[in-house]
Amino acid sequence: MKRIGVLTSGGDAPGMNACLRALVLTAHANELEVIGFQRGFNGVLDQEYQTLSPYHVSGIIQDGGTLLKSARCPAMHTEEGLKQAAANLHDLELDALLVIGGDGSFRGVLELAPYYQGKLLGIPGTIDNDVDGSDFSIGFATALDTALDAIDKIRDTADAFERIFLVEVMGRHTGYLAVAAGIAAGAEQIICPELASELDLDKIAEHVEQARKHRGNCSYIIVIAETMYPGGASALAVDLEQRGIECRASILGHIQRGGRPVGADRILATKLGAYAVEQLVQGAHLMMAGEINGKAGLYPLALTGDKKKQVDSYLLRWQQQVAQY
Amino acid sequence: MKRIGVLTSGGDAPGMNACLRALVLTAHANELEVIGFQRGFNGVLDQEYQTLSPYHVSGIIQDGGTLLKSARCPAMHTEEGLKQAAANLHDLELDALLVIGGDGSFRGVLELAPYYQGKLLGIPGTIDNDVDGSDFSIGFATALDTALDAIDKIRDTADAFERIFLVEVMGRHTGYLAVAAGIAAGAEQIICPELASELDLDKIAEHVEQARKHRGNCSYIIVIAETMYPGGASALAVDLEQRGIECRASILGHIQRGGRPVGADRILATKLGAYAVEQLVQGAHLMMAGEINGKAGLYPLALTGDKKKQVDSYLLRWQQQVAQY
Amino acid sequence: MKRIGVLTSGGDAPGMNACLRALVLTAHANELEVIGFQRGFNGVLDQEYQTLSPYHVSGIIQDGGTLLKSARCPAMHTEEGLKQAAANLHDLELDALLVIGGDGSFRGVLELAPYYQGKLLGIPGTIDNDVDGSDFSIGFATALDTALDAIDKIRDTADAFERIFLVEVMGRHTGYLAVAAGIAAGAEQIICPELASELDLDKIAEHVEQARKHRGNCSYIIVIAETMYPGGASALAVDLEQRGIECRASILGHIQRGGRPVGADRILATKLGAYAVEQLVQGAHLMMAGEINGKAGLYPLALTGDKKKQVDSYLLRWQQQVAQY
Amino acid sequence: MKRIGVLTSGGDAPGMNACLRALVLTAHANELEVIGFQRGFNGVLDQEYQTLSPYHVSGIIQDGGTLLKSARCPAMHTEEGLKQAAANLHDLELDALLVIGGDGSFRGVLELAPYYQGKLLGIPGTIDNDVDGSDFSIGFATALDTALDAIDKIRDTADAFERIFLVEVMGRHTGYLAVAAGIAAGAEQIICPELASELDLDKIAEHVEQARKHRGNCSYIIVIAETMYPGGASALAVDLEQRGIECRASILGHIQRGGRPVGADRILATKLGAYAVEQLVQGAHLMMAGEINGKAGLYPLALTGDKKKQVDSYLLRWQQQVAQY
Repeated sequence: MKRIGVLTSGGDAPGMNACLRALVLTAHANELEVIGFQRGFNGVLDQEYQTLSPYHVSGIIQDGGTLLKSARCPAMHTEEGLKQAAANLHDLELDALLVIGGDGSFRGVLELAPYYQGKLLGIPGTIDNDVDGSDFSIGFATALDTALDAIDKIRDTADAFERIFLVEVMGRHTGYLAVAAGIAAGAEQIICPELASELDLDKIAEHVEQARKHRGNCSYIIVIAETMYPGGASALAVDLEQRGIECRASILGHIQRGGRPVGADRILATKLGAYAVEQLVQGAHLMMAGEINGKAGLYPLALTGDKKKQVDSYLLRWQQQVAQY
Repeated sequence: MKRIGVLTSGGDAPGMNACLRALVLTAHANELEVIGFQRGFNGVLDQEYQTLSPYHVSGIIQDGGTLLKSARCPAMHTEEGLKQAAANLHDLELDALLVIGGDGSFRGVLELAPYYQGKLLGIPGTIDNDVDGSDFSIGFATALDTALDAIDKIRDTADAFERIFLVEVMGRHTGYLAVAAGIAAGAEQIICPELASELDLDKIAEHVEQARKHRGNCSYIIVIAETMYPGGASALAVDLEQRGIECRASILGHIQRGGRPVGADRILATKLGAYAVEQLVQGAHLMMAGEINGKAGLYPLALTGDKKKQVDSYLLRWQQQVAQY
Repeated sequence: MKRIGVLTSGGDAPGMNACLRALVLTAHANELEVIGFQRGFNGVLDQEYQTLSPYHVSGIIQDGGTLLKSARCPAMHTEEGLKQAAANLHDLELDALLVIGGDGSFRGVLELAPYYQGKLLGIPGTIDNDVDGSDFSIGFATALDTALDAIDKIRDTADAFERIFLVEVMGRHTGYLAVAAGIAAGAEQIICPELASELDLDKIAEHVEQARKHRGNCSYIIVIAETMYPGGASALAVDLEQRGIECRASILGHIQRGGRPVGADRILATKLGAYAVEQLVQGAHLMMAGEINGKAGLYPLALTGDKKKQVDSYLLRWQQQVAQY
Repeated sequence: MKRIGVLTSGGDAPGMNACLRALVLTAHANELEVIGFQRGFNGVLDQEYQTLSPYHVSGIIQDGGTLLKSARCPAMHTEEGLKQAAANLHDLELDALLVIGGDGSFRGVLELAPYYQGKLLGIPGTIDNDVDGSDFSIGFATALDTALDAIDKIRDTADAFERIFLVEVMGRHTGYLAVAAGIAAGAEQIICPELASELDLDKIAEHVEQARKHRGNCSYIIVIAETMYPGGASALAVDLEQRGIECRASILGHIQRGGRPVGADRILATKLGAYAVEQLVQGAHLMMAGEINGKAGLYPLALTGDKKKQVDSYLLRWQQQVAQY
């Protein structure tokens, strides 16, 4: 093994740069050349790439976003695109391709496998944390603290006005971010797919009234996962007001994707970047480098999208039990 | 003068607690008792209040929100409400009432004046900064850094995807926050009432294309003041996409109101709280305690809403000149 | 079980308040009264305490420090003190005592056991993370991000001046904080007890020269655990200068103990507080509520000080291998 | 005027990069080429420089430190060095040199003046804020918030242990940072050169005892400017303990120099960078571009070190009056 490629794909996540750094340093220690592709798979198809040496990744451990940029690449869903990508990788004499992204990106990797003769490895990088095979994905810890910081600020106004706020957080079809942010913010209610596939307006309203009975007028924060209500938190706020629950919606949006990675993300990203290269050298293929119970390990790429990982049901149940006090 | 009342009114702003602290400590040094009303003028009407001693304001200099809570008070727009408020203030033998809020709250104070025999003083507290008689209002500096922190995070994703973002900031009918955040974030475009009363979709689109011609694909951030477009940044994003400008909207919303006050706000709040009490003792009436050119001073409450203060036109013009490079 | 006591002991750690909140809410759900003692065991001896209801812990999840205050209590190292403490707990008819602190505090708990008839439970709260039976102790994650934020700032100056900095972090006799902060900051060198019991000036100097040979003049940061050098980082800086290595020392000190807890600490603190009360109700005694591999569990208090937990040797070894590039 | 040089000199300050960006963009708008020298005046002497185009300063507005690096340059204190510097500037056909730094750097500029035929302009960049001719220097606002954040954290521990802390902040021979941080942190005592040239141990101790009499045991924070006591805060802590005042010292050190610039610094830096170039084009020479009362203006370089600017005596006096409550 002499030369490997790397790209970042899907939504950017804080820590992707820390991962690139670790990966390049480890490759250098193993005398491997690293080629970084621009804009996800587009860089493979368009042959936009650069050599990445330790010099290029110096000082990027603390940067949000991704040095290599990211983008969707519809062409990779066609046979023609896949063949072209494989051909370009072969032309560059790349012995392996490492993809930092979410399970959507990993599906693309699996589709490329029949055409490409090198090794393929994934590293989980997404703030949604919805990747099986790793307790946490790169970016989740930072997104949690970003969301939390925002909710803490909203709490100030909610307290001052004894107001109800609906805060919509990211997470696609999972509630990892909603549950973590909701617990950490001391939210009065958490609405996420893991609790109920459908949202019940009556139950929400009843809970609000219950809490106000116990505690008098006070702030009340509902953390809601995106995709839980048609039209999002803004539409839900309108519908709740029609039931006499006056509330404000706040959609945190893209701020959750950016920012300097927190310590936990830099450490995870560094570990997985280093480990992935070491495992490549050892022959790993079609696997994802993840961390389970504090230890780096490999997990079949084909299983990373099975949605078997669970949110913390202990805390979720506890929150429902005590939130009214 | 023996006893004074204080309340916070209008939107909460970081630093209101620091102001309350300074005010109470200064009153204590001048042997004045302080009564704090809850929920703005509602506390006056409903007789919900508490004595505030140095003990109560210890350790609150760093807290966002307001210890006294805030709320709208429609009753203060009726003669009956004003008379009742004055009667309650007289019953409590209050020699003066201090109101921390924006120019809307100050209008309420002016309406109360004919009925109340004590002194009336205002202190500017609003993140919008739209109060004449003070270079900055309490809360503006913190809101700027909160908005900036959010835009910096959005920049990470915008860079990674070479994408255009519309970021909507608060400010009501003024562009103080939009201009400051836009300059500080290095935004490519700033849209605010001071530049043009009406927004021109063609000009926005042309500017984007111009910048992309100069710089190639890259991130591009438009900071837009709320109330500049019907339906806000989300509606604008839809309309821009119809002209072929693909962009995302991010509405920063209520996070801009909360959070720990930054140093500048704590210092301003401390100075104005201390100064206001000192001036009350000296007989000030129907004035606002503000800071101009670094010095505390009094300004007629009746003029605080004249909108004569200006955004920094030097920087705004500069930004328009260089943003395309 | 009707009434339980709680205290915070040893160095304060961010998240202790979040833990108190969870503990009180869970006790309330289980119809238990909670008595909070002031200043660690001093509050037990001096009978300074307060009842803690959900009202008292509302809104404290985000506060650093500890509502109950903390202090050393030398009297608890005497038989007389222990007997008095037990007698006071009996007088208050407390069925159990919960202690949030480090392994030093837990030793005190074990010494109290022969005299006190109620249940005794510990919860790990210390930024040092040096407690067996829990992967992380409350406060560690926040201390890491505080240290990291400081080192990132120091990096700016180190880069600007191409200078060497020695940054001393807390951790008592362990390197958890030094290793985590060093990895996350991309430090060029980490000096901690787990790597070598004694510090070798020649090796440090050699490493610096090696790195400068590879990379030219550049910033170079050494993260060093406290207690690794007599006189600390300042003395080490002086001694290194005598060998021709010009460097600056920065002792992060007490800032590492305070601040708003990050999400990870709030979640851990909430989980352990809730779990500890649930386990008390089930009869747990002389145990510590910890979290291992993401799951709450009990661990014998007597073993919490055995120092069997390890720093992440994978990352530590990796850092030594690549830091010179 | 066709080509100008720029360098950053003295201690780095957050916002220097924002200033470089504004300066380069404005030069570009005025069709001027910009040469950036590395490591302060060393880059002039060693002929280490690079052309700076808008591309080079894209995305640096938010970075701490300085792109151009900084360093002391003893050779500039010799006639030979000055002559060589001037010769090198002439060789590069530079019509002007812009220096971002403190008054020490400006003295160097004045010494260069007799030898160099181009224009010379300064921009105040130092966290110490000790430059006449500008209300604030670039970096001061950020350093204030960094110090404040640290003191807030120390307050948590001070509260938990009812302890006295001595916090030493930067500022060289002035108290701008100490006064601002002390006021904003609600410090119980501020020790700075503007209050007394010599520090009185008895008065410090008396104040502590007075406060404890008024308020009972509580946290107590003394913010002290560096250079106020031989050996600094650590030595002072030792000496205070000998008088029975148990206290801890915390030296904030170099963290105060780094970090992302806050909004106020980015705006000031942008304004001064733009203004300086515009004034150069208009013929300014031997002046500093500063901001007074919110407006950019020129001030003779020769007067910038006169130490006529004052700390906020109103707040300082107020603090002394109320701090005991």
